[in-house]
Amino acid sequence: MGVPVISWKNDYLMVLDQTKLPLREQSVDLTKPEEYARAIRDMKVRGAPLIGIVAAYGVAQAALNSQNEQFAEFEKHVRRALESLAATRPTAVNLFWALKRMQAVLDDNILRSPAKHALALLNEAKSIHREQVEADRAMAMNGAALIPRNSNVLTICNTGALATGGEGTALGVIFEAHRQKRVKRVFVPETRPRMQGRLTAWELHKGRVPYKFIPDTSVGALLSREEVAAAIVGADRIAANGDVANKIGTYQMAVLCARHGVKFIVAAPRSTFDAGCPTGNDITIEERDGDEVRKVGRCFVLPKEYLVWNPAFDITPRELISHYVSEDGVESGGRED
Amino acid sequence: MGVPVISWKNDYLMVLDQTKLPLREQSVDLTKPEEYARAIRDMKVRGAPLIGIVAAYGVAQAALNSQNEQFAEFEKHVRRALESLAATRPTAVNLFWALKRMQAVLDDNILRSPAKHALALLNEAKSIHREQVEADRAMAMNGAALIPRNSNVLTICNTGALATGGEGTALGVIFEAHRQKRVKRVFVPETRPRMQGRLTAWELHKGRVPYKFIPDTSVGALLSREEVAAAIVGADRIAANGDVANKIGTYQMAVLCARHGVKFIVAAPRSTFDAGCPTGNDITIEERDGDEVRKVGRCFVLPKEYLVWNPAFDITPRELISHYVSEDGVESGGRED
Repeated sequence: MGVPVISWKNDYLMVLDQTKLPLREQSVDLTKPEEYARAIRDMKVRGAPLIGIVAAYGVAQAALNSQNEQFAEFEKHVRRALESLAATRPTAVNLFWALKRMQAVLDDNILRSPAKHALALLNEAKSIHREQVEADRAMAMNGAALIPRNSNVLTICNTGALATGGEGTALGVIFEAHRQKRVKRVFVPETRPRMQGRLTAWELHKGRVPYKFIPDTSVGALLSREEVAAAIVGADRIAANGDVANKIGTYQMAVLCARHGVKFIVAAPRSTFDAGCPTGNDITIEERDGDEVRKVGRCFVLPKEYLVWNPAFDITPRELISHYVSEDGVESGGRED
Repeated sequence: MGVPVISWKNDYLMVLDQTKLPLREQSVDLTKPEEYARAIRDMKVRGAPLIGIVAAYGVAQAALNSQNEQFAEFEKHVRRALESLAATRPTAVNLFWALKRMQAVLDDNILRSPAKHALALLNEAKSIHREQVEADRAMAMNGAALIPRNSNVLTICNTGALATGGEGTALGVIFEAHRQKRVKRVFVPETRPRMQGRLTAWELHKGRVPYKFIPDTSVGALLSREEVAAAIVGADRIAANGDVANKIGTYQMAVLCARHGVKFIVAAPRSTFDAGCPTGNDITIEERDGDEVRKVGRCFVLPKEYLVWNPAFDITPRELISHYVSEDGVESGGRED
């Protein structure tokens, strides 16, 4: 990939502006914690793991920017960054997990020096980033083994390098499976409202993996007409009973895969598994601004006063899932075929 | 509705330009047969029944514009109009059916006077239009009776006045059911790639029927979270065994409705039932230009060189259909619940 997804530049973070893709490759520099929060809120950076990493760097940025202040001031600024970053996206568990790790470093009172604290926080953010790269690699190897040779596969949204800062979750599995000659073609639904399928098409197009971009309405027709071996999707949060919260459209894809006997594989890091959340019913679903649906890019396609329902995620019950893949290995889901 | 969908103005046809909706309500006057053909080809008018009606008026227009010529010249102009209108949308069954009726009137040699012929052709076009209005009315009454009081309902694409020139097929049923206090709210999927759901939202918004416009990805989430009594959809063609060809996205909606025990109702005029076509497998599915997916309106959302699959229709098997509604009554489908 020509432009890196994120890149720490000694004292600030450069991120690829994903809202501009695939039409333009343009980076933005984040130099203040508010800019990190805005980049996450405006979805310049998106994807649960990447949000966690960027938020962690945002906390480090707050610390670096305040490292010459008195400890009380320093701590106030870092805590404020922690709070504002936590308020950006309510469903993403990785965000809270990453911020909790940063908080733990902040709370480590042994250092008591802003400059040392700031360095420790930056190192923690870098660790979170590096661990993701390693986890993605392991997950890709674990997941690829589930794909038969020469298969058509299906995915949803974007779960690649653009989503994790590593090589991706579900799309990382697909790239690895393609290297192993297991993937013939990838079908990529648009994924309205935000059309993150375009990001997946961009990654596949740049990576020279054969793909077809399809409207969200054509997933059922695809499965009834083409031989598809597996759908591989990511997850934003996995409840203790195995229910999966993921991008809106995942649930209906899982229903269609079950009908057509197509494997449904969820690829997600261990950090996505939320033992504190008993079932899918306990996951709060973020409803986003209706303008995401009323607009495509900057253009209104529906007048402002029109009524819209715009849930960001849906819940796929364990019974519709064939396998869960993480960096630790593969677990069976609840699908009976 | 403030602006009529089509309106015959003594010697020309005024049509609402559907490509401008819902952002602008703008009419165009069609005064020459070439303008009728272009309006159909450019989808300023769309919907199988409405295309047939407009094409019929286009033939009448050719006749009226040539009524002061010698019969041979007159006939040449009308036949040229018949041919050019037949070439606009090669898959629309109603178009050929309407043009065949106009041709039969032209071929009626008893009149042999251009002026009388022209009047007869105009009257035939008006009959085709009026019969559609009556059929829609009967279908609306037949279908509304299937909806329980105070229900949420779901539809797809646009099947209203904008599609038929009457009060619509599936959406006509929904409007009538709303008048009968059977419909609480209508959920309207966007229906990519061409987003005809916007036309449905426009009709409901103007008609003061409560609705929510939703992304195509959220149909499954809707059915798992909200009480929805029925989905009511149109059809482009119904095979002898009851399989239905309709707008892409219909099949997956039917699968989801079956899973959630939501009635799935197909509302279509008798002329849609094709006894000569044994099963859904015998229906050729039109694949349209990938730019419909790469673009939204006039804006590219995906670069031109990206690979796209863009089937226009899908096939819903009879087993997923609860009821077929036409102007003649209601028939049971193959759903077992």
